[in-house]
Amino acid sequence: MKPSDQKRAEGFLFTDQYHLTMAQLYYRMNLHEKTVRFDHFFRDYPDYGEHQAGYCVNAGLADLMDWMQETHVSEADITRLRAQTGRSGGALFAEDFLKWLGANGSFEALSLMAIPEGRVVHPFVPLTVVEGPLAMAQILETPLLNHLNYPTLIATKAARIRESGRGQLLLEFGLRRAQGRGATVGTRAALIGGADYSSYVGASDLLGLPPRGTHAHSMVQVFMALGEGELDAFRAYADVYPDDCLLLVDTIDTLESGLPNAIKVFEELRRKGHEPVGIRLDSGDLAYLSIRAAHMLDQAGFPDTVIVLSNNLDELVIWQILTQVAHEASRYGVEPDKLIARLAFGVGTRLITSWGAPALGGVYKLVAVRDGGEWRPAIKISETPDKVPNPGSKRVWRLYDQRGKATADLLCLEGEQPADMERLTLHHPYDPGRQRGLARNEISELEPLLVEVVREGRPVHEPPTLEAMREIRRADIERLDPGVLRLVNPHVYHVSLSEELWQLKQDLIRRARGSDD
Amino acid sequence: MKPSDQKRAEGFLFTDQYHLTMAQLYYRMNLHEKTVRFDHFFRDYPDYGEHQAGYCVNAGLADLMDWMQETHVSEADITRLRAQTGRSGGALFAEDFLKWLGANGSFEALSLMAIPEGRVVHPFVPLTVVEGPLAMAQILETPLLNHLNYPTLIATKAARIRESGRGQLLLEFGLRRAQGRGATVGTRAALIGGADYSSYVGASDLLGLPPRGTHAHSMVQVFMALGEGELDAFRAYADVYPDDCLLLVDTIDTLESGLPNAIKVFEELRRKGHEPVGIRLDSGDLAYLSIRAAHMLDQAGFPDTVIVLSNNLDELVIWQILTQVAHEASRYGVEPDKLIARLAFGVGTRLITSWGAPALGGVYKLVAVRDGGEWRPAIKISETPDKVPNPGSKRVWRLYDQRGKATADLLCLEGEQPADMERLTLHHPYDPGRQRGLARNEISELEPLLVEVVREGRPVHEPPTLEAMREIRRADIERLDPGVLRLVNPHVYHVSLSEELWQLKQDLIRRARGSDD
Repeated sequence: MKPSDQKRAEGFLFTDQYHLTMAQLYYRMNLHEKTVRFDHFFRDYPDYGEHQAGYCVNAGLADLMDWMQETHVSEADITRLRAQTGRSGGALFAEDFLKWLGANGSFEALSLMAIPEGRVVHPFVPLTVVEGPLAMAQILETPLLNHLNYPTLIATKAARIRESGRGQLLLEFGLRRAQGRGATVGTRAALIGGADYSSYVGASDLLGLPPRGTHAHSMVQVFMALGEGELDAFRAYADVYPDDCLLLVDTIDTLESGLPNAIKVFEELRRKGHEPVGIRLDSGDLAYLSIRAAHMLDQAGFPDTVIVLSNNLDELVIWQILTQVAHEASRYGVEPDKLIARLAFGVGTRLITSWGAPALGGVYKLVAVRDGGEWRPAIKISETPDKVPNPGSKRVWRLYDQRGKATADLLCLEGEQPADMERLTLHHPYDPGRQRGLARNEISELEPLLVEVVREGRPVHEPPTLEAMREIRRADIERLDPGVLRLVNPHVYHVSLSEELWQLKQDLIRRARGSDD
Repeated sequence: MKPSDQKRAEGFLFTDQYHLTMAQLYYRMNLHEKTVRFDHFFRDYPDYGEHQAGYCVNAGLADLMDWMQETHVSEADITRLRAQTGRSGGALFAEDFLKWLGANGSFEALSLMAIPEGRVVHPFVPLTVVEGPLAMAQILETPLLNHLNYPTLIATKAARIRESGRGQLLLEFGLRRAQGRGATVGTRAALIGGADYSSYVGASDLLGLPPRGTHAHSMVQVFMALGEGELDAFRAYADVYPDDCLLLVDTIDTLESGLPNAIKVFEELRRKGHEPVGIRLDSGDLAYLSIRAAHMLDQAGFPDTVIVLSNNLDELVIWQILTQVAHEASRYGVEPDKLIARLAFGVGTRLITSWGAPALGGVYKLVAVRDGGEWRPAIKISETPDKVPNPGSKRVWRLYDQRGKATADLLCLEGEQPADMERLTLHHPYDPGRQRGLARNEISELEPLLVEVVREGRPVHEPPTLEAMREIRRADIERLDPGVLRLVNPHVYHVSLSEELWQLKQDLIRRARGSDD
């Protein structure tokens, strides 16, 4: 598949077949232009096995909006659909439907409310609410989920890694291990969520950041194969990049060869009036080696050089390394805090794939249909109570306590004004036994989370810059309770339904069960 | 990032920064046009935690070749590189290098040998061998790995799922959970590895297959919200798709509502002269529900309808479902084999992400440098012996035993003729204590695995069609020992070094260690 051909697959037909067959059914039943609302939300934080997220960082919205803007059905798409046959051998899509789709196959009639990128988000909270004609809102399901699930997953992972790395420089190195060109949006999400820079040149450029990198083992190997050695390779690097000299020291033996050679070259550099940048460790016991490396560099008079660590890092590995450094560095004559302050982390595979939980289970559920000028809430029943979506047109408020910490996200029905209520009842989303009351004066702030971003196909909200999204993320994480931030077994953040929404949900469940008994 | 802008990131700059800085260093040292060889290989099969792969299915080559053909550095790329600055504030890339890159920034000078797509492959075996000028071969590292790692991962997962599903119809449903547009190559890989069809319309079309799908819960919900019910929704579907009627029966209650309603509609269909296709189960205990559904459908006179299962399936879940069906179906009056023969599997998240092992650790290592008309083998040392790459220009032979089963992959040095040897010594790739001898007459066939696919930028090997790749995969899997195919704790397939290669590797390790002591 040529790159130029792949683009063809990623336009209007970047969706699942059943949306198109449902769209034709809606057309046939004259339901295709009924106004509906779909909620996009996820049910569970990523669970990485040994550790779990207690919050997510929302991402992907701007790319979805760009895709919706650029995407229209083409004559070629229609031709392809026309060629599809059913089991009887006849055309699967009828000409009248294809004609309608040819004229209406864009997302111009849809409106979106959404929680902005960079914000901390939680399960069951509508992150995106789509309103518009049924057929096109249905076809959008898969592209919307594709554009939002993965970036939110990666922004979340990056935020965790940044937290566990105590805010030290975080470099994204994952291009080679990503799902093909998915790397481009993955890199963007990593940079929103917590990575400072990426090694991926094209994506960095697109996002207005300089790419970052060091050198690979192959550079040293070339010199060795030609009868020279690691020292010659390092010298060449220092010659070409005297002010950007960061050397990979584990091609032969980190402590016996790489570090002594690097220090030799650093001394030569300094004599020529340049200061070296640092070293990278890419194998072995990174905690132990970083302590030993720091000691050797300190002794040699290079206490300010950076030590970049890489090799299958994630939040848990980084946490372990920092814990060990904190406990043991002083035994080797290295001040732990000073060592930690010179560390940087290069994270590839485990960030770009969200290793341990490589997908976010975001879903897109019909919540209301407009009929005769009125919104009729929609429901779906399930034997697993958490799979029953919250019905109706909703709004979301974040409640902050008197410390200024976020204490709950409250889902209300449209029109409810929780700010005016003296006492709020917060229902667990599906467990009838769990609810709590909150007096208005226990709440320092009620913040609406959903923002109107697209009105009938037209963007009405300037997407924040990368730096602004990072600032949003920093501010939101700061307002989380430390228990929610915990790397392992985090405290469960409360997402609650208002009394009115809870009652509506119970009514609809009863009715759905009753009417079909 | 607009889709049209993203394309810009995915051309020549779809690589890591350090390749470009190393390329400039090679240029400065006049090494940039030295002919070198890089091997691409992986070290470990995917390990999904509770279960592990005993083989991989190679994929991605045609897409890599297409990308290499289409990709050249552009004037805009050069402008972007020109803008990069080092820490001193000066330009990172010098004008002479940029001029050279502008004239030579394509992959036209590179030659590739590779193992064809669809073939079963194993750790340490060079899957792709790149030969050509150092600078461009270096820059290719990341795009090559990006194009090959992920497809091989997914083709492998699909092959496992197909095996555990006893060859029953396998549908790929993963677009919404993929890494953005990575879904396109992921879908292709799934279709090579074992999926019969995909729900992703655009990718299916590109690959010449019809997309497949059923309908979603939302269709039933719309009818419910408008005061009608599941039965009305099913009737509408049957009306529009009388010969393609496959109904999702779990929107309200599978056994109490969905199945009785589906059967009612199937009966109506039959009276009108149409045969229903089947049902889909998407929640609950799929083993139990499929038995109960089969029983109800049998009783109602629809023993030939398909039962599609979906909802977080993977090879282990499918294996458990089939085991349970085999043990318990007869207790409910259902013949197990007949039930299994009517099952189909819709697999989304866990296939497209390779859940449990979401990246293949494929690497790209310098193995030889041509100098003064001679190949000089390159090595890299590591404290972990499996991380020392096998040096030199190599060839790979697959040895088949007298049963016609593949018994080992043998890595030889170029020029070695294992077919002419009376007795082969097979060395473990890095454990000196493990070797075995094999008399020539124990081997029924020696098959070379690497094929020349690109000669100086020009494709010289017609990529096989999708159907041909599937046939290659089927044939290779059939020639694996059943122990290697085992889902859990598979037998370890032997990958071995020839005596000559083993000796060269040991020599180089000794020399590298010695010269730097």
